[in-house]
Amino acid sequence: MTANDKLAGRTQKGLHICVGLDTDINKLPHHFDKSAESIFEFNKNIVDATIDSAAAYKLNLAFYEIHGIKGLEVMKKTIDYIPEDILIIGDAKRGDIGNTSKMYAESLYGHFNFDASTLNPYMGHDSVSPFLEYENKLNFILALTSNKSADEIEKQELSNGQFVYQKVIEKVHEWNIEKNCGIVFGATNSEELQANMENIGSLPVLLPGVGAQGGSLAEVVKIFRKYTKTNFLVNVSRGLLYIDNTESFTEKVSAAINQLNHEVSRINP
Amino acid sequence: MTANDKLAGRTQKGLHICVGLDTDINKLPHHFDKSAESIFEFNKNIVDATIDSAAAYKLNLAFYEIHGIKGLEVMKKTIDYIPEDILIIGDAKRGDIGNTSKMYAESLYGHFNFDASTLNPYMGHDSVSPFLEYENKLNFILALTSNKSADEIEKQELSNGQFVYQKVIEKVHEWNIEKNCGIVFGATNSEELQANMENIGSLPVLLPGVGAQGGSLAEVVKIFRKYTKTNFLVNVSRGLLYIDNTESFTEKVSAAINQLNHEVSRINP
Repeated sequence: MTANDKLAGRTQKGLHICVGLDTDINKLPHHFDKSAESIFEFNKNIVDATIDSAAAYKLNLAFYEIHGIKGLEVMKKTIDYIPEDILIIGDAKRGDIGNTSKMYAESLYGHFNFDASTLNPYMGHDSVSPFLEYENKLNFILALTSNKSADEIEKQELSNGQFVYQKVIEKVHEWNIEKNCGIVFGATNSEELQANMENIGSLPVLLPGVGAQGGSLAEVVKIFRKYTKTNFLVNVSRGLLYIDNTESFTEKVSAAINQLNHEVSRINP
Repeated sequence: MTANDKLAGRTQKGLHICVGLDTDINKLPHHFDKSAESIFEFNKNIVDATIDSAAAYKLNLAFYEIHGIKGLEVMKKTIDYIPEDILIIGDAKRGDIGNTSKMYAESLYGHFNFDASTLNPYMGHDSVSPFLEYENKLNFILALTSNKSADEIEKQELSNGQFVYQKVIEKVHEWNIEKNCGIVFGATNSEELQANMENIGSLPVLLPGVGAQGGSLAEVVKIFRKYTKTNFLVNVSRGLLYIDNTESFTEKVSAAINQLNHEVSRINP
C-alpha cells in the first residue's frame, strides 16, 4: 500500500484531521509517571481513541529525540503499534547534501518505517532527492510555515515578483516526477493559501498551525472545498492531546476529534 | 569553557581543520566488521590520530541515525570520548517552530552535549532562537551550502538585489545577541565567499565541501588571510577518514591531517 493510497483511503471518507503525536512528557494526564515508557502508553491510548476518526498520524521527531535513545525506542514502538493502513508522517524537516540526505531517508523510511516525512527545501533539489527516490512514500516539503518568523526568509520577495515560498512550490512541481511530493503550508496563513491554490494544484497539503498557533480549521477547509483536486491534512496536536488530564482522557480525546470531523463535514464551499 | 573559547584555543595555534566524523560503515578499513560498535572503534582511532592536529570535530547526525538507536549510542560514546577542550559540532541542520526547536536544542546541547550545531534558517528567527539561548554554545547557520542545488533557493535574487543567502547572513547578525552565531559557507563557493567577507564580518565560518565535493583548501584559506577578524574551520571528512584501508590507517590519517595543516600554514595573504 503506497503512502498516497493510505492518504486517499482516509480522505475519501471525509477524514482530514492528522493527529500530531507531539507527546510532551510534562503535559500527560496526572496518572502517568514521567518515564519514556509513559509516552508510549499515552500514544497507545491516543491511537486507540482516534484510529477510526484520524486521517493520519504525525510524529515530530524532536519530541522523541529530546529523550535520547529511549525516546527513539518509544517512537519506533509507537510507529509499530499504529495499524498498517493509515499514513504515519515523520515530521523531521530534514535536508542535507546528497550522501547525507540518503542516510536520513534510510533512517526515516527504512529503519523507522515512516510512510511520509517533512523536508526542508533550503538546500535545493539534491538535498531532497534521496527521499524522492522512495516512490511509495510521501514527501511534504516546507513551503510557508505556521510560525511568526516565516516572513523573514520564506516571505522575502524575489526579483521576479515571486515570494521565496512560491519559488519552493514551483520547484516541488519540478521535483514531483514520482508523484510523491506534497507541501507544508501553515494554517495560520489562510490568505496566502487562498491566493496560491492554483499554484499548489494537485500537491497534497499538510497544514500545521490550527489550535495553539492560531490557525482556523474552518477557514482552511473552506478553501479546499473550492479546490477539490487538492488533498489536504490539517494537523492538530496540542489541541487534542492535552484537553483532559484525568484517567478518562481518552473519552475526551475521542469526542474532540469527532467534533473536529463534524466541523470539517459541515463546511460547504 | 565556552564553545568560542574552545574554538579560539585551537585556531590561535593555527589549526583550522575540522575532522568530520561522518563515519560510513561501508568504508571502514577491512579489519573492522560491519557492526555499530566498529563505528565507535574507528572513531576512537581517528580521534587518537588527530587530537593534536584538529581544530574541531563534526559529527553529522545522519551517519548515526541511519543505524537507529544503536547508532545514537555510538554517537554519544564518541562525543564522550573526545576530550573536553576541543569543539564538537553536531551537524544536524535542524530548524522547526519554537516549542519543537527547543526540544532539538535540548537533545543536541543537553542530552548529547555537543558544543555547537548547524541550523537551517528557512523558517526564520523563532525556529533557531531556542538554540541561541544556549549562550555558551555556537550555532552555525546555513548560508550558502556546498552542494550543486544551492542555486535553486539560496542563490535566488531578492527584489532588493540581495541573494537569499545574503539575507540570511544579514539576519544572523541580527540574531547574534549572545555572540554565539556563525555561518556555514560551502568551500565550493570561493568566489561568493570572497565577495561576502565584509558582510560576514566577525561571524565564525564553517566551510564544508573541500575534497570529495571539489572545494579548494588553498583558495578559501587565502581569503581568510586577508580578513583576520573572521575565524574559520574547514571541514574534511571523506578526504581524511578513508585514505587507507589497512590496519595501519591511523598513521596515514595522522600524516594526512598534518599535511593539511602544513598547507594551511604555508598560505600567505
